[in-house]
Amino acid sequence: GEPTGPLVKTAIPGPRSLAMLSEMKKIQISDAVQLFADYSKSIGNYLYDVDGNILLDVYTQISSIPLGYNHPELLDVLQDKENIRTFINRPALGVFPGENYPQRVQNSLLRIAPKGHTEVTTMACGSCSNENAYKAIFVWYRRKQRGDKSYTPEEETSCVMNQLPGVSDLTLLSFKGAFHGRTFGTLITTHTKPVHKLDIPTKDWPIGTFPRYKYPLEEFVRENEEEDRRCLAEVEELFDRYNKRGKTVAGVVIEPIQSEGGDHHASPAFFQELQRIAKKNGAALLIDEVQTGGGTTGEFWCHDHFNLDHPVDIVTYSKKMLIGGYFSLPEFRPREGYRIFNTWMGEPSKVILLEKVVEIIKRDKLIENVRVTGDVLLNGLKDFGKRYPNVVKNVRGRGTFCAFDCVSMAKRDQLVEQLKVEGIQSGGAGPVAVRLRPSLVFQPHHASIFLDRLEKALKKM
Amino acid sequence: GEPTGPLVKTAIPGPRSLAMLSEMKKIQISDAVQLFADYSKSIGNYLYDVDGNILLDVYTQISSIPLGYNHPELLDVLQDKENIRTFINRPALGVFPGENYPQRVQNSLLRIAPKGHTEVTTMACGSCSNENAYKAIFVWYRRKQRGDKSYTPEEETSCVMNQLPGVSDLTLLSFKGAFHGRTFGTLITTHTKPVHKLDIPTKDWPIGTFPRYKYPLEEFVRENEEEDRRCLAEVEELFDRYNKRGKTVAGVVIEPIQSEGGDHHASPAFFQELQRIAKKNGAALLIDEVQTGGGTTGEFWCHDHFNLDHPVDIVTYSKKMLIGGYFSLPEFRPREGYRIFNTWMGEPSKVILLEKVVEIIKRDKLIENVRVTGDVLLNGLKDFGKRYPNVVKNVRGRGTFCAFDCVSMAKRDQLVEQLKVEGIQSGGAGPVAVRLRPSLVFQPHHASIFLDRLEKALKKM
Ligand code: FES
Repeated sequence: GEPTGPLVKTAIPGPRSLAMLSEMKKIQISDAVQLFADYSKSIGNYLYDVDGNILLDVYTQISSIPLGYNHPELLDVLQDKENIRTFINRPALGVFPGENYPQRVQNSLLRIAPKGHTEVTTMACGSCSNENAYKAIFVWYRRKQRGDKSYTPEEETSCVMNQLPGVSDLTLLSFKGAFHGRTFGTLITTHTKPVHKLDIPTKDWPIGTFPRYKYPLEEFVRENEEEDRRCLAEVEELFDRYNKRGKTVAGVVIEPIQSEGGDHHASPAFFQELQRIAKKNGAALLIDEVQTGGGTTGEFWCHDHFNLDHPVDIVTYSKKMLIGGYFSLPEFRPREGYRIFNTWMGEPSKVILLEKVVEIIKRDKLIENVRVTGDVLLNGLKDFGKRYPNVVKNVRGRGTFCAFDCVSMAKRDQLVEQLKVEGIQSGGAGPVAVRLRPSLVFQPHHASIFLDRLEKALKKM
Repeated sequence: GEPTGPLVKTAIPGPRSLAMLSEMKKIQISDAVQLFADYSKSIGNYLYDVDGNILLDVYTQISSIPLGYNHPELLDVLQDKENIRTFINRPALGVFPGENYPQRVQNSLLRIAPKGHTEVTTMACGSCSNENAYKAIFVWYRRKQRGDKSYTPEEETSCVMNQLPGVSDLTLLSFKGAFHGRTFGTLITTHTKPVHKLDIPTKDWPIGTFPRYKYPLEEFVRENEEEDRRCLAEVEELFDRYNKRGKTVAGVVIEPIQSEGGDHHASPAFFQELQRIAKKNGAALLIDEVQTGGGTTGEFWCHDHFNLDHPVDIVTYSKKMLIGGYFSLPEFRPREGYRIFNTWMGEPSKVILLEKVVEIIKRDKLIENVRVTGDVLLNGLKDFGKRYPNVVKNVRGRGTFCAFDCVSMAKRDQLVEQLKVEGIQSGGAGPVAVRLRPSLVFQPHHASIFLDRLEKALKKM
């Protein structure tokens, strides 16, 4: 079982982590390594490192561990002799799926499909989920333009050489501060930090402004509504401008909460209106739930909070879902095989694990746990916002997906370090935010330990 | 153990496969599905389907099964209680690697590093391997241009908005018929079939001609040398043309054998001279060994056959290697963390499996097995080329990585179907080729069974 609390014995990284790090540096750049973990000992919400430190983990591998470490029922999945075979016989899933694979997809992904969705395509990570969803949008858009006509011979020969009319000049509209991945297509729509983008050839696609609210929300209702209006007007203007230039906007790509960019929220009204603008322009709306999906916001999908007029055209997922992929409305299904394809198309062993994860989320009412724990967390943070107003600013969150800002990047980094000294593994987001991304089994008593340690850290700032 | 030979009881796909396929079609496009496999029963070189058919598999999940199905020693890896934990605690590997991870990379990937290589970056599939290798090339090239100067504030702000000078106009030179992946960056360099590229916005990067040889090679020495010269002159011309237009060519991307494009080979002399041209132009050479790597050509890396002057700058891998990634010379290591990064950065559980795969390849001398078996296979095919010249054309191969052409796509597809009736799972490549991609445990007696069944199929054509 879990320990009763964190335990810090050494500096972090400690001497054993440092020794392994120096080995790692011989092999590859390792500047992002924070510590070497002991995944045999790590349990539940506690991350053990190789120096015997025990950290309460509110970051969970960049939000990708749904049920904490070494969940006994996930270990049991690998005790099953039949299941084990799935882990060593990875198929080309789009060509030779295994027995009952459709049933397994029903029991896992489709069991938690977003509202209005009955179709799902599996991929292996967040980047290829978005890359392929982008492709599905372009294919859908051009099919609408072409009507029932087939490709011309000229289109077929020109596309192979990257030439019009076979390839297109279509674009996707993304937002400042957005993060959708680091592969070339997704990178065009990612606008967080220079380190992701410097030197890489990209393309000129429209970039809107994601609202930046003033907090606390209840004090700045008028200002924030005005911010929504300003950002939405800009989106309309970008549609006009790019469509006129022949760089037709085929879709809008957006996170329900800008996560890597610094946990920026936008109102349900903003998303409702954005969906209307996309529809009016014949463009698809893609909501990227790679970081927000899986229950951590107190709904299985964050956009469930938005009360949208229509189902979202495409919803991408990964991280806590263990694999990647996207849900899409039937009209986004390509008409030909191999339009959306790759060798592995996800991985059945992850679907087996996800099947169990979904079962546990439902059975143990973990979404409700997130709501209850999220209240403890957010109220605690709001209280700190009042008592330590020079360190804790703009407290915000949905479920346990919470964040606050520091006055500067230096102060934020200092706080994240100090939290580690107090036994808390957290993480930054954007230039000045601290983000919380605990697992779904993070309970109110964990939140209390976290708040207690956070206060200790705040007192030392 | 393995059965003594194939056994076909039903049409393929059989009734149970068809029933599952109709379930699958409700969920997603499934036009590429050939059959539903029984991965519990599949063993060694034999793929069992859900209808009780047993196929000798010379395609191995698009060349991605190194040791055949259900290798007992890989199953044993999952009997180990410590190992199992690695399968359910997937870390953000670039931030929180597990205990002894550098040692595991030494025992697996670095144990089979290409000549001159001591550094490796892990990724999760062939596409992100190439995407990130491309990024490493652009970063390296711009650093050479910048010298020791850091980025300007203008570069930092402009890149986030996809604008020069922060992003670049650099290009990579690829080849007609090349396949490097289907994500946006790799798709720019993929030139196989329209179905991969139609409607997707790409970029105008230089595209050279990969040699197309006349067979048998010994009869067309002069013609094929002339073909090499023509293609290499075109590469030089493309460098000049694109560099002059400000679309500077930062690197050349090439497969050692164009695989998806139809198993096109080029001579060692061609690759040697290509490396010289790249060096002369200050451009990197990336050899994409995603399909050719892992021993299947009779060397661990196909480019080992080429006797190059220098180590290759970057070598990408995936498929048989179970994970993806790239080996790169030290100068391609970025100077800042997070330049090459994503949440998962590969997967330690795959590295554990790969460690065992590499151990078995060495211990069981499987590369030598590939050479011996490859001789049986290639000689048999060459014999058919003489005896069935209207069906089996242009026989070629290295190791068991063999192929031949049919007179048309229709005839090729017909032969692949007929082979299935005879109990052989093979696959097409490009417009008219049949490709063989058996596992590394495919032995001479398997090759004999294959040749026997192929001849039966040929007689019915
Ligand atoms: S791009 Fe997603 S796993 Fe490679």
